[in-house]
Amino acid sequence: MSKLRVNAFTLSLDGYGAGPHQTLDSPLGVGGENLHKWMTSTRSFHKMIGRDGGTTDTDDMLTARGFENVGAWILGRNMFGPIRGEWPDDSWKGWWGDNPPYHVPTFVLTHHVRAPITMEGGTVFHFVTDGIHSALEQARAAADGKDVRVGGGVATIRQYLQERLIDEMHLAISPVLLGSGEHLFAGIDMPKLGYRCTETISTADATHVMIGRA
Amino acid sequence: MSKLRVNAFTLSLDGYGAGPHQTLDSPLGVGGENLHKWMTSTRSFHKMIGRDGGTTDTDDMLTARGFENVGAWILGRNMFGPIRGEWPDDSWKGWWGDNPPYHVPTFVLTHHVRAPITMEGGTVFHFVTDGIHSALEQARAAADGKDVRVGGGVATIRQYLQERLIDEMHLAISPVLLGSGEHLFAGIDMPKLGYRCTETISTADATHVMIGRA
Repeated sequence: MSKLRVNAFTLSLDGYGAGPHQTLDSPLGVGGENLHKWMTSTRSFHKMIGRDGGTTDTDDMLTARGFENVGAWILGRNMFGPIRGEWPDDSWKGWWGDNPPYHVPTFVLTHHVRAPITMEGGTVFHFVTDGIHSALEQARAAADGKDVRVGGGVATIRQYLQERLIDEMHLAISPVLLGSGEHLFAGIDMPKLGYRCTETISTADATHVMIGRA
Repeated sequence: MSKLRVNAFTLSLDGYGAGPHQTLDSPLGVGGENLHKWMTSTRSFHKMIGRDGGTTDTDDMLTARGFENVGAWILGRNMFGPIRGEWPDDSWKGWWGDNPPYHVPTFVLTHHVRAPITMEGGTVFHFVTDGIHSALEQARAAADGKDVRVGGGVATIRQYLQERLIDEMHLAISPVLLGSGEHLFAGIDMPKLGYRCTETISTADATHVMIGRA
């Protein structure tokens, strides 16, 4: 059965999340020097951004696993780009260049209508203006039996969690204090929503936490 | 130099803290079945509550370390007991029986005056009604050069953190989602207060996080 998944979503020790776009756009962003280190050091990540080398350890396995059997993605608008409000024109096509790392239909949540964009490598950005349920329905249809991955950011994951729609979530807790940002769990009662921690795996650079249904 | 320390303070994955009194009083409290497992399984903990056996691993070493070179403790009132408001009488003497695990002067923050209580084994409970700075001053004097340990709970640790008074903090993050409670870091900007993560150590039952001054 097609699952709705979160993979490789990184949190600081104090619970703040940051989407991977921050890594791709500014790998050494404010306070985030070591936040994504567990992932950016892996061979899978290197390959994704067209580099050689990288580690082939547990962190790499978990990074790679996040891309397996994914038929569509859902992204919050802030993860797609820095523009707020109406789209001024069609020039912004994401942080990721001409060939984004998705390679499947990718649904961007927004309040502002925009025509789909076909990128190189199989990624097609679709802009969804009628909410998270519609985005999920469209993504499931596009995924054709494969899973749908929610890329983030925090606000988008929180919305799907609150509707109990996420089936599996892999979080990576990095040994970094951020001090501010969007908190993933604040005000969300995970056990009450039917979730529990099913497994933890620790590596040198992160504690990986698997969350599933109770 | 005498340090103000937090040791072995356990947090859930979603950031909620619970003081060790919950373990001593109700080891299987609401949602907390596995929260303190890393500690309650250790030889040091077993010894503290008068039992034989227990593990002698990293978790045990970290539990034991929390009691080394401690000359005085500071506890929030809720960690001392369930009574709120005025003390109805002198019958409540803590959760820990006649011989509490402190064995040194222990300063309890409260708004309500009460005479000190001398327990077996060296613990003397002093009740401090004029705030956290006064409690620290009295504890430092009593500690006679040794460190002062803040036992908790969350509200007490938060107050000392916000005043930048804590020198070292050892947190244990357990693979448990609690869903509600008091959040240790909410609204506290740790990097801004001058703190950073200095080390993490993972065991089967917890990720131990060491926090110190940047």
